[in-house]
Amino acid sequence: MRNIKITIEYDGTDFCGWQIQEKGKRTVQGELETVLSKIFKSKTKIFGSGRTDSGVHALGQVANFKTKSAMTPSQIVKALNAWLPEDIAVHQAEEVDENFHAQFSAKSKIYRYTILTAKTRRPQIRKTSLYNPFPLKLNVMKKEAQDLLGKKDFRSFQAADSAEEIIKGEKSTVRTIKGIAFRRSQNLIFFEIEANGFLYKMVRNIVGTLLEIGSGRRAAGTVKTILKSKTRMSAGQTAEPRGLCLLKVNY
Amino acid sequence: MRNIKITIEYDGTDFCGWQIQEKGKRTVQGELETVLSKIFKSKTKIFGSGRTDSGVHALGQVANFKTKSAMTPSQIVKALNAWLPEDIAVHQAEEVDENFHAQFSAKSKIYRYTILTAKTRRPQIRKTSLYNPFPLKLNVMKKEAQDLLGKKDFRSFQAADSAEEIIKGEKSTVRTIKGIAFRRSQNLIFFEIEANGFLYKMVRNIVGTLLEIGSGRRAAGTVKTILKSKTRMSAGQTAEPRGLCLLKVNY
Repeated sequence: MRNIKITIEYDGTDFCGWQIQEKGKRTVQGELETVLSKIFKSKTKIFGSGRTDSGVHALGQVANFKTKSAMTPSQIVKALNAWLPEDIAVHQAEEVDENFHAQFSAKSKIYRYTILTAKTRRPQIRKTSLYNPFPLKLNVMKKEAQDLLGKKDFRSFQAADSAEEIIKGEKSTVRTIKGIAFRRSQNLIFFEIEANGFLYKMVRNIVGTLLEIGSGRRAAGTVKTILKSKTRMSAGQTAEPRGLCLLKVNY
Repeated sequence: MRNIKITIEYDGTDFCGWQIQEKGKRTVQGELETVLSKIFKSKTKIFGSGRTDSGVHALGQVANFKTKSAMTPSQIVKALNAWLPEDIAVHQAEEVDENFHAQFSAKSKIYRYTILTAKTRRPQIRKTSLYNPFPLKLNVMKKEAQDLLGKKDFRSFQAADSAEEIIKGEKSTVRTIKGIAFRRSQNLIFFEIEANGFLYKMVRNIVGTLLEIGSGRRAAGTVKTILKSKTRMSAGQTAEPRGLCLLKVNY
């Protein structure tokens, strides 16, 4: 069996996230498996680098699958893009070592969260950004975000309803945030975060908290307190999924 | 009666264009009139700078309406954005002279057409760009576009089924193209065109023709021949509406 790694872009708006769920729910993994199984005329299972939630987008999601097919990577890309619905596309395919696994081989992931700060809504980017009409102190947010860097227990930023915890029992909630960057372009703020892994809804909970700090609803210094508390109750609201995009997975 | 000018952004994807049509068809003008009539508790008619086709977007569409209301322009903007659906927003309102008419007072309009030239589709921008997988010679397109500049008869680039012609009989098809610019950003080409007015489907017919020239399906020099012929038959295919956006109307 050959092991094929693919890089995927999607508009998450009309998906119930990445992971296959009960029947009738449209997922990215589901669409990919259906098309791959059609192309290879054989049931093909795909492994993603991780789940993305309902409404979350990806420019560089990575997945792998095993196949006996002799198609070249570029033929696979063409066949996939011909069959996939218009809200998913595959940008690259390559044959990788048999031990490569999109999730377990990943060294880090980079997410971007897009915030629109304007007097009025922007219909053309409404599905890929969070609209925040309140004044934001970007410098305060930047400073506060520094307290998130490094190897830490991010339990407070994990979703209270974390499916992983419920199913698999207690798991480590320690992760290493390798970098955080804020960029501003006109009235858009791009928040980028790289970590060796993310807990369930961690990025959206971090963004929600930073927005509360930036808008003055929470005092500066809050992030340290939240991290220490180790309870989801202490952090801010979960920011809407529409602003979130999985940019890249590093191996 | 006060005369109010508003500047409107919309995502044209889910609209049957700007202009109110038969019942059941969702239009931008229709949505705006419904909301304005609700806000002012009085049937309010709105006049746009011009129609945009089904699927065509706008960042700076302009319209005006008459009202007896005493609301300030900024109150009008807030009320409109609170009631309008999420694919329309009003960025500005101002009180103007009673003789101002969004269509007849317009001096020029600027449209932008976005073309994606990449090996694979881009789901996240599929609704605001035309995907062109063929190699394009941008220099040839730029040179050819020069022949469109100035005051000319653009009959060849007017839609064959032009509603205006059918309804109102023979009308002048002379327009003045004031400027054309091409910008490239990574694998996107932005084609911008300014004219004192545009015939029905004129921008999309021009873009379709330039794409045929840029991809080598038509010889350079074709634009001159097409203009001379004065028949729609001679020009290229109409480019898809999704790539087109009304950027600005100048008064």
